[in-house]
Amino acid sequence: MDIPAGVKKLIALAIEEDLGMGDITSVLTIPEDKKARARVISKEACVIAGLPFAREAFAQIDPEVEFKPLVEDGEKAKKGDVIAHVRGKARSLLAGERLALNILQHLSGIATLTSQYAQKLKGTKAKIVDTRKTLPNLRYMEKYAVRAGGGANHRFALYDAILIKDNHIKAAGGVKKAIRLAKGQMHLMKVEIEVKDIGEFKAALEEGADVIMLDNMGLREMRECVRLNRGRALIEASGNVTMERVREIAATGVDIISAGALTHSAPAADISMKIE
Amino acid sequence: MDIPAGVKKLIALAIEEDLGMGDITSVLTIPEDKKARARVISKEACVIAGLPFAREAFAQIDPEVEFKPLVEDGEKAKKGDVIAHVRGKARSLLAGERLALNILQHLSGIATLTSQYAQKLKGTKAKIVDTRKTLPNLRYMEKYAVRAGGGANHRFALYDAILIKDNHIKAAGGVKKAIRLAKGQMHLMKVEIEVKDIGEFKAALEEGADVIMLDNMGLREMRECVRLNRGRALIEASGNVTMERVREIAATGVDIISAGALTHSAPAADISMKIE
Amino acid sequence: MDIPAGVKKLIALAIEEDLGMGDITSVLTIPEDKKARARVISKEACVIAGLPFAREAFAQIDPEVEFKPLVEDGEKAKKGDVIAHVRGKARSLLAGERLALNILQHLSGIATLTSQYAQKLKGTKAKIVDTRKTLPNLRYMEKYAVRAGGGANHRFALYDAILIKDNHIKAAGGVKKAIRLAKGQMHLMKVEIEVKDIGEFKAALEEGADVIMLDNMGLREMRECVRLNRGRALIEASGNVTMERVREIAATGVDIISAGALTHSAPAADISMKIE
Amino acid sequence: MDIPAGVKKLIALAIEEDLGMGDITSVLTIPEDKKARARVISKEACVIAGLPFAREAFAQIDPEVEFKPLVEDGEKAKKGDVIAHVRGKARSLLAGERLALNILQHLSGIATLTSQYAQKLKGTKAKIVDTRKTLPNLRYMEKYAVRAGGGANHRFALYDAILIKDNHIKAAGGVKKAIRLAKGQMHLMKVEIEVKDIGEFKAALEEGADVIMLDNMGLREMRECVRLNRGRALIEASGNVTMERVREIAATGVDIISAGALTHSAPAADISMKIE
Amino acid sequence: MDIPAGVKKLIALAIEEDLGMGDITSVLTIPEDKKARARVISKEACVIAGLPFAREAFAQIDPEVEFKPLVEDGEKAKKGDVIAHVRGKARSLLAGERLALNILQHLSGIATLTSQYAQKLKGTKAKIVDTRKTLPNLRYMEKYAVRAGGGANHRFALYDAILIKDNHIKAAGGVKKAIRLAKGQMHLMKVEIEVKDIGEFKAALEEGADVIMLDNMGLREMRECVRLNRGRALIEASGNVTMERVREIAATGVDIISAGALTHSAPAADISMKIE
Amino acid sequence: MDIPAGVKKLIALAIEEDLGMGDITSVLTIPEDKKARARVISKEACVIAGLPFAREAFAQIDPEVEFKPLVEDGEKAKKGDVIAHVRGKARSLLAGERLALNILQHLSGIATLTSQYAQKLKGTKAKIVDTRKTLPNLRYMEKYAVRAGGGANHRFALYDAILIKDNHIKAAGGVKKAIRLAKGQMHLMKVEIEVKDIGEFKAALEEGADVIMLDNMGLREMRECVRLNRGRALIEASGNVTMERVREIAATGVDIISAGALTHSAPAADISMKIE
Repeated sequence: MDIPAGVKKLIALAIEEDLGMGDITSVLTIPEDKKARARVISKEACVIAGLPFAREAFAQIDPEVEFKPLVEDGEKAKKGDVIAHVRGKARSLLAGERLALNILQHLSGIATLTSQYAQKLKGTKAKIVDTRKTLPNLRYMEKYAVRAGGGANHRFALYDAILIKDNHIKAAGGVKKAIRLAKGQMHLMKVEIEVKDIGEFKAALEEGADVIMLDNMGLREMRECVRLNRGRALIEASGNVTMERVREIAATGVDIISAGALTHSAPAADISMKIE
Repeated sequence: MDIPAGVKKLIALAIEEDLGMGDITSVLTIPEDKKARARVISKEACVIAGLPFAREAFAQIDPEVEFKPLVEDGEKAKKGDVIAHVRGKARSLLAGERLALNILQHLSGIATLTSQYAQKLKGTKAKIVDTRKTLPNLRYMEKYAVRAGGGANHRFALYDAILIKDNHIKAAGGVKKAIRLAKGQMHLMKVEIEVKDIGEFKAALEEGADVIMLDNMGLREMRECVRLNRGRALIEASGNVTMERVREIAATGVDIISAGALTHSAPAADISMKIE
Repeated sequence: MDIPAGVKKLIALAIEEDLGMGDITSVLTIPEDKKARARVISKEACVIAGLPFAREAFAQIDPEVEFKPLVEDGEKAKKGDVIAHVRGKARSLLAGERLALNILQHLSGIATLTSQYAQKLKGTKAKIVDTRKTLPNLRYMEKYAVRAGGGANHRFALYDAILIKDNHIKAAGGVKKAIRLAKGQMHLMKVEIEVKDIGEFKAALEEGADVIMLDNMGLREMRECVRLNRGRALIEASGNVTMERVREIAATGVDIISAGALTHSAPAADISMKIE
Repeated sequence: MDIPAGVKKLIALAIEEDLGMGDITSVLTIPEDKKARARVISKEACVIAGLPFAREAFAQIDPEVEFKPLVEDGEKAKKGDVIAHVRGKARSLLAGERLALNILQHLSGIATLTSQYAQKLKGTKAKIVDTRKTLPNLRYMEKYAVRAGGGANHRFALYDAILIKDNHIKAAGGVKKAIRLAKGQMHLMKVEIEVKDIGEFKAALEEGADVIMLDNMGLREMRECVRLNRGRALIEASGNVTMERVREIAATGVDIISAGALTHSAPAADISMKIE
Repeated sequence: MDIPAGVKKLIALAIEEDLGMGDITSVLTIPEDKKARARVISKEACVIAGLPFAREAFAQIDPEVEFKPLVEDGEKAKKGDVIAHVRGKARSLLAGERLALNILQHLSGIATLTSQYAQKLKGTKAKIVDTRKTLPNLRYMEKYAVRAGGGANHRFALYDAILIKDNHIKAAGGVKKAIRLAKGQMHLMKVEIEVKDIGEFKAALEEGADVIMLDNMGLREMRECVRLNRGRALIEASGNVTMERVREIAATGVDIISAGALTHSAPAADISMKIE
Repeated sequence: MDIPAGVKKLIALAIEEDLGMGDITSVLTIPEDKKARARVISKEACVIAGLPFAREAFAQIDPEVEFKPLVEDGEKAKKGDVIAHVRGKARSLLAGERLALNILQHLSGIATLTSQYAQKLKGTKAKIVDTRKTLPNLRYMEKYAVRAGGGANHRFALYDAILIKDNHIKAAGGVKKAIRLAKGQMHLMKVEIEVKDIGEFKAALEEGADVIMLDNMGLREMRECVRLNRGRALIEASGNVTMERVREIAATGVDIISAGALTHSAPAADISMKIE
C-alpha cells in the first residue's frame, strides 16, 4: 500500500512526539549495536488493521528495521496469533514499539468494531459507512481501518463532496433551493442532502438529489422513504445507529447506514510486542 | 491556558485535513457574510475537557468567531447542559464545528473515564495515571484530559524520564546494573524501573531506584512489596487495571496506578453543536 | 473571500522566494518609515482576477499596508482603469509589488482568456471548464481565475473525483468492467469515463456512467453521442478545443467543453503599479 | 543537475496538490503491482527544458520509477520526437504523469520562446535576459528554462543584487545620491540603476554605476547612451521588448535586453505521455 | 550515533541558509562530475566533537559523499592531526565544507573548554555541567559537545525538569510552599530549587528538595550547606564559575558545578579542510 | 527593523526548543494571570545588538508582552545600564527570558568584538568584514551584529556572490581561465578571486577581477599588491587577522579585512534580566 505523503508526515510528527531528543533509557542501558527480534502478538480475537503504518513508523525511525507482517489487514486474528515479526537494532525496536502498537491497537479496534456491524448487515443490501467524526489528523488511517473491517467510507472531508445539512437548507431558503444552488454550479459531483421528515424527503427527490440522508428518522418513516424513492436516489440512514438497531434499520431497505461510533468509540484491540 | 506551539500546529493540520481547499457545500449554499450563533450541548452526563482546544480550532479558522465556554474543563456536565456559546459567520461555525466536537468528544470521554477511576480511589492514597498508550499526535491533549478528569500524568515521552523495562534490564545485565548505569549518568532525573517479581523488587530497592513499577503482579505480591519498601521508593502498579480491580489494587498501598485504557479505550462523550 | 490555509502558505513561500533575507536596494536607499501610495492600473482591456491574493501578499509582508480593490474579480477593466489603491510604508509597497502583480497578471490573463471562450458559448447550453493542466502549486488560484472569467471547474485533483481514462480501461479489462469496479466501491461519487469512439460511448452509457468524456472526437461523432445519450449521462468534449472550434463543438449539444489552454497558455494581462 | 532543496520541496508540494490522499481512480481500477512503460513525446517542434524536474517528480512519488531522458535540456525536439522513456508501476506513472507534463510543457514553452529571441540576436553582442516577472514559486525553474533556451538570467530576487528604480531615486533624492548610498555600503555587489532619460544616464555614469538600465527609451536615445558610455557601464534595455523590435534594440549597441514575456506569457509546449 | 529528527531538520535548514539556490562559483568553474578528496585537519590541539553532525551535513547535500572520521568525538587531537577523510564530487565537498567546519569548530571549541574544566575537577567528586545558556537551535549539539568534553548535562529545557528559581519562590510565597506545589503534582520528577542563602537552603532541605542550587554563594557558605546536607539532597553550585575558581568550589564538597561559559563563550577550535 | 520571515521561523524553532510542551516549573508555581515587570541590564561595558530579535522572541511567546528598548542596537552600554524594560504575564517573561538573553548576549558579544576591530581601523580606509564562518542558522543575526558593531558584511552565502578560491582555480585551469568562466556568464555580479601570491594577483588584475582577496600574505606582499593595483580592483586581506595585527594590515592600503573570529569566537556579553 502506498501511504500518502501527508500521512507519512503525520507519522514523522508522532515519532517526534514520542522520541523528541532521544530515548534516554535505551541510550543509558542498551549498547548501540545490540540487535534484537520481536513478535507482534494479538492478545485477543480481533480484525487486524494498520500494519503498513506500523511498518512505516519503524522504517522512519531506522530504515534497517525489518518488519514482516504475517497476516494482511482485514484478516481476523485469534488470541495469541503472531501478526508480525520485527528485527533490527534493539534501540530501534524499543523506539518504535509504542507508536507502532498505538497505531495497530487503535486501527484494529476500529476494524473489529466495523466488522461486527458489517456482520449484522450480512444478507441485506445495506453498507455500514463512517462519518467525519474521526480524531484530529487520524482520518486517513481511521477510514482505512473502516474499509479493512468491511465497511465503506463516506466523504473524506468538507472539500471532496457536497452534503447539504439543515443549516444549509435554512440559509438557502428550503430543500429545493439548496439543491438547485448546488447542482447549478457543480456538474461533476453528486449532491447529498440531509432531510428530517417525509416532506423534505419528497422535495429532495423531486429536485433530483443524488443521495438523501434520513436524519434520525423512525423505522416506519424510513420504510416510507424507501417506498417513495423507487430506486432513484441513494438513501442513507443516520443517527442513533447501534449494534442492536443496525439490522432493523437495514431491513427498511436503505442503501447506506452511517455510524460515528466506528471511529470515535472503538476500544483499542489488545496487541503487544514481545522482544526476544 | 497557553497552548504550546506544537499543539497549535497539530490543530492547524487538523483544520487542513477537514477543510482542505474549502467547504464546498457552505460556499454553494450560504451567503459569505451571514452570521449565526450556536450552543455546544452535552447530550449525556460527562466531565468536560478540551474547551481551550476547541476555541483554538475556531480561532484559527476565523479569528472573529467568539467562543465562550460556560463551564471549565474538569467540571461535570449533565445531559442537556449548554457548555459553550459560539457566534460568528455561519460558514466559519460550520467549518469548525466538526473538528471542535471531535476534540471535545474525545477529551471529555477520556476525562469522564478518568474521573470514574479517580472516584474509585477516593479515600486511598493512590493516584490514577496515564501511560504512553495515546493516539499518534494527540498525547498532549489526551494527557491534559486525564488531568481534567482528576488523574495525574506519567512521563510525557521517551525523552523526559527514565523508565527501565525488562529489555533494558536484560541488555544491561540485571536490575542492579541497569539502575547503576542510569544513576551514574543522570543526576537530575528520577530513575524508575519495572520489576516482575519480589526478587527484582528487592534488588531495585537496594540499588536506590526512585520509583518501582510492579508489572502485572498479584495483590498479595504488591502488598509484600509495599511492606518491604517502608516508604523508600514510590511504588507504581501497572497491568490489568480495570474499573473492577482498581480499588483493591489501591488497597495494597501502592502510590500510583497506571492504566492505558484511560486514553486508548475511552468512548467519545456525546456532545453536539446546535446552530440557531 | 476566505483563502485556504494551504494557499496562504504558498503565498508565504512566494514572498520568501522574492524577499529572502531582504530587499537590499530599498534598505540602502529608502528611509524605514517613509510612507507611499500606489495605484494598480490595468494597461489593457482585461477581466480582472486575483485581487484577494494580491491583498494577502501585501498583508503577509506588512499587516499595515492597506490594499483597496476598486473592482471585483470577474469584472472587466478597460485600458487605464485603476483597479486598486495601495498605501503603507514605501519599503513594504516595493517589497510586495512584484509578487502582487505577478499574481494579478497571471490570473487576469486566465480570466480574460476564459471569458473569451465563455463569450463564444453564449446561447448554447455548454460550459467551458478547465483541466488539471495547471502550473505546479498554482491550481487553486488558476481554477479560481477560470471561475472569475465565467468558466466552471473540472475536478480539482486526483483525489476528489473519479475519471477513468484509457489506461484504466485497459488495466480493468474494458469500459464496462472499469465502470463496475468504480461504482461498486464508491456510492457517493459520480463516475466519469473517457471514451474514444461510439462503441465505448455506448458501453459507458449502458453501464451507467454519470459523465462521459468524448476524447478528440469529430463533430459528427459528438452529435451521434448526444443523440444516443437522450439526456442520461453528462457529456464532456475534450481535445483540440480552440477559440475557432469551440462554438461548433458546443453546437453538437455536449454539456461541458474542457480546455487545458485556459490555464497553461494564457498570456499575462498587462497590469502595473504606479507608486506616487 | 543538482536540484536545490527548496525546489525539491516545491515539487513535493505540487505532488500533494494533485495526489492528496491518493488517486482514487487508479486505486479502483488498476492492480497495485501492474507495471507499465511510457514514452514522453513532443507533439510540436520546441526546445526542451525541465527533464530533471520531471524526473524528480516521478522519483518523489515512487523511487523505483525509471525516467530516462533521450535528449538534454536546451536541445530542439521535432514534432513526434520521443524525449524520454519512463517505466515502473502503472499507478506511479499515472500519479506522476500530469505534474511531469505540466512542468515540461511550461518550461519547454519558456525555452522555446527564449530561443526565438536569442535567434533574433545572433550576430549582435546583446543577450536576452529574464526579469522577476515569474510565477509564484516557479522562479528557479523558469530562470533555468530561460538559460536552456539560450538566454541569460537577471538577478534572482530582491536579495541578491542591487537595482535602483525610480522610486528609490526619488526617495534618495536623485540618481547620484542613490548610487552613492548603495556604493558606500556594499563593496562587493555591482550597482544597477534604472534611468528614464539621457540626463539621468549621464548622472549614473558619472557616479560610477556598474550597470544602467534604459527604461522604455527610444532607439535614438539608446544609441546616444551607448555612445556616451564608451564601454564603461554595462547597458541594459528594458520595456516594450517584442520579437519584432528586439533586433533593432540590439543594433543600438546595448549589452543586455530584458523581457518579462519570456516567463509570464510563453504558451505551453505541446508534450504528452503515451503509456503502453 | 542516531541524530534526532529535529536536529536533522536544523542541519537541513543550515544547508539552505548557505546553499540557497546553489553555489554559483562552483557551478561556473567546476565540472559537474569532477571528483575530489579532502582531509579535515585540526590546526591546534583540541578535543574533537561534532563528527556525526558534520557527516550528516555532507550526507544531506549528497548521499554519495564518503565521510570517514579517523578519531571519535571526545578524543584529543594534536595540531596537524587529520581527523577525517572526505571524498566525493568536488562540488559537493565545496558545498558542505563551510557548514561541516562551522559545526566542528564550534563543538570542538566547547568540548575543549569543557575538558579543561573537567581536568580541574580531577580527584574531586564534583561534575561540571552546562546550562540553558546555549545558542538558539544549537542546544542539542552544544550539550552533546559538553558530554564529549567530559562534562555532564543539566536539564535540556523548560519542559523536562523542574527548577524553582527566585521568581517562582516569590510567586509561590516562599521556598517551602514552592517545593510543596511542585512535589504535590509531579511524583515522577526530581524537584530542584535555587537558594540564595543558608536560611533558604535549610528550608529547601526540610521540605525534601531533591536538588538544591546554591546561587552565587561564597565558599564558606557552600561548605556550610554541604555540612548541613549530610548527603540528603544533591548540591549544585552556580554563578561566577571560572577556570580559576572551579577547583576551590569543588573542594567545598558540592556535587555539581554549572557554567554557562561552556556553551556561550567557548572560542572556535581551529579546524580546516584541505581539498586535494 | 523588519525581520525576514525565515529568521522569524528560526526564532519560533528556538522557542519550541526551550519551551516544548511547556514550562513545568512556572505552571506549578506561578498563577496564570500574575503580572510582572523586568529590566534587561548590561552587566559589563559592551556594544548592544539584538534587541529586535529579543522583542520578537517575547512577541511570539505572548503578543501582550511589552518590550521597550532604552538604547538602540550599535550603542555602547556601560556596566549596570538598563537596556530594556519588559512587562507582561510573569509566566511569559520567564518563558522568554532565557532565549532573549541568549540572543542578546551572543549578538552583543559579536558587536563588541567587531567594534574593537573597527576602533583599530579608525583613520585608515580599510573596513573590517565578516565571513561565512557563522554558526548554523544564525548567519542573518550574526551578520546583523557585525554591522551593529561598525563592521561590514562579506557575501551572505554561496548563492549571492562569486568568490573563486584555490580549488576553483585548479579545477578551471588557472586564475585567468577561472575569471573568464565567471565573467562570461554573470554580467550582473562582481567577480572576487582569492590569490596566494603576487603572480596570481597580477593574473587576476589583468583578467579584470573586481575584487581580489590576498590569502594569508605577508605585509610586504600586500603592500606590493596595493601598489600594482593602482585603484583598479578592490583588495581584501584575509587570514591570520588578529587584534594585534589588524592595524598594520590596514596600513598596507587594502580596502577590506575579513575575520572569521568576529562571529565564531566572540565571547558572550554579560547581560541579564531582573524580574521585579
